[in-house]
Amino acid sequence: MTQRHPDDATRVQRHPERGAYDRATIDAILDEALVCHVGFVHEGRPVVIPTIHGHERERIYLHGSPLSRMLTTLADGVDLCLTVSVVDGLVLARSAFDHSLNYRSVVVFGRGQLVDDADEKLHALEVISEHVLPGRWADVRPPTARELAATSVLVLSSEQASAKVRSGPPGDDVRKPPLDTWAGVVPLALTAGTPEADRGTPSGTEVPSYLQGYRRRPGSA
Amino acid sequence: MTQRHPDDATRVQRHPERGAYDRATIDAILDEALVCHVGFVHEGRPVVIPTIHGHERERIYLHGSPLSRMLTTLADGVDLCLTVSVVDGLVLARSAFDHSLNYRSVVVFGRGQLVDDADEKLHALEVISEHVLPGRWADVRPPTARELAATSVLVLSSEQASAKVRSGPPGDDVRKPPLDTWAGVVPLALTAGTPEADRGTPSGTEVPSYLQGYRRRPGSA
Repeated sequence: MTQRHPDDATRVQRHPERGAYDRATIDAILDEALVCHVGFVHEGRPVVIPTIHGHERERIYLHGSPLSRMLTTLADGVDLCLTVSVVDGLVLARSAFDHSLNYRSVVVFGRGQLVDDADEKLHALEVISEHVLPGRWADVRPPTARELAATSVLVLSSEQASAKVRSGPPGDDVRKPPLDTWAGVVPLALTAGTPEADRGTPSGTEVPSYLQGYRRRPGSA
Repeated sequence: MTQRHPDDATRVQRHPERGAYDRATIDAILDEALVCHVGFVHEGRPVVIPTIHGHERERIYLHGSPLSRMLTTLADGVDLCLTVSVVDGLVLARSAFDHSLNYRSVVVFGRGQLVDDADEKLHALEVISEHVLPGRWADVRPPTARELAATSVLVLSSEQASAKVRSGPPGDDVRKPPLDTWAGVVPLALTAGTPEADRGTPSGTEVPSYLQGYRRRPGSA
């Protein structure tokens, strides 16, 4: 695992002690976050669009309709910023000022490139699908040639990236009043409810094993 | 409640049937989303930063250190795009192509303005605090003059906004193979675990009532 050296764009400026630049940390957060928020400049104004991503080593994949504003803009290779954030908890201090969130975020700067190669395009869609729900891809009908043509895939590098992590209890001075306030952390997580089969699913169809205990953090309890 | 008329910037282009422009829909999503992602242009490049917001009618408040890149940039009144997204579920179809997410998102275009008035600044911080955890503000030490000076607050209008919502089961043709695949929706929600008191909380302190059953969607089960 390479240790990255942050440049002026990626270096975490506020709370530099929360910054992390190693690939393992960055990749784990990219893996866990279900969606990302992609920023780009369209007609001179910033636009931020939520979308699904997938990644494989340093290659981050995005997909969408070739007609979408995001895809048509990004296909030109313009600068983009892809940000993911995972919220881990509310941090409740005794003072309003010291309240915070526990979170892990990654900011990636780069430029997208259209994936033209049919094999890589199909592979990228599998990577995105497996990012959302590992095991699903093998269970479904793969894209037809027509569906592939109706999907654009972009790749960008996660080389220019930084992570920012805040964890643990509040950092305020516990000796200062109000001394009787409950302070601490309320853990938060994106959790799955009971899967709801649609009307086209034959009755009696077992819920696939990859849906049981679905959670975003691989290996977590 | 006014019905807004989308302009070219805010009109939902892909899946226009998912677009919504009424204040009630937009406000409910802004309320539920714990964090937002703010996009702006810094030194010619797009930057997307996750942060907490609060809002009161059409006024959206952001806060942060006066030294942060985000606050110093936005304080100049540059164009920004504030996006929130709430993920409601995985939508699993029979074909890879028809997989989707159930989500609700809001995109706001605007320009921030520094809040200079001390009373409005304090009020904005209360609005942000109550956005995160209703009831907390009354329980904690309010900001000192020094802490207020170390906090910048921005206000922007949610007038130029649009929502996009996808809900319900997969939309694929249930008569097409593979016919025996489990398809449907896996509901997702940001849920709270058991609150963990910090070492400064006197033992025996009751967990505040506003922490019991904490959830992001007001009134939801």
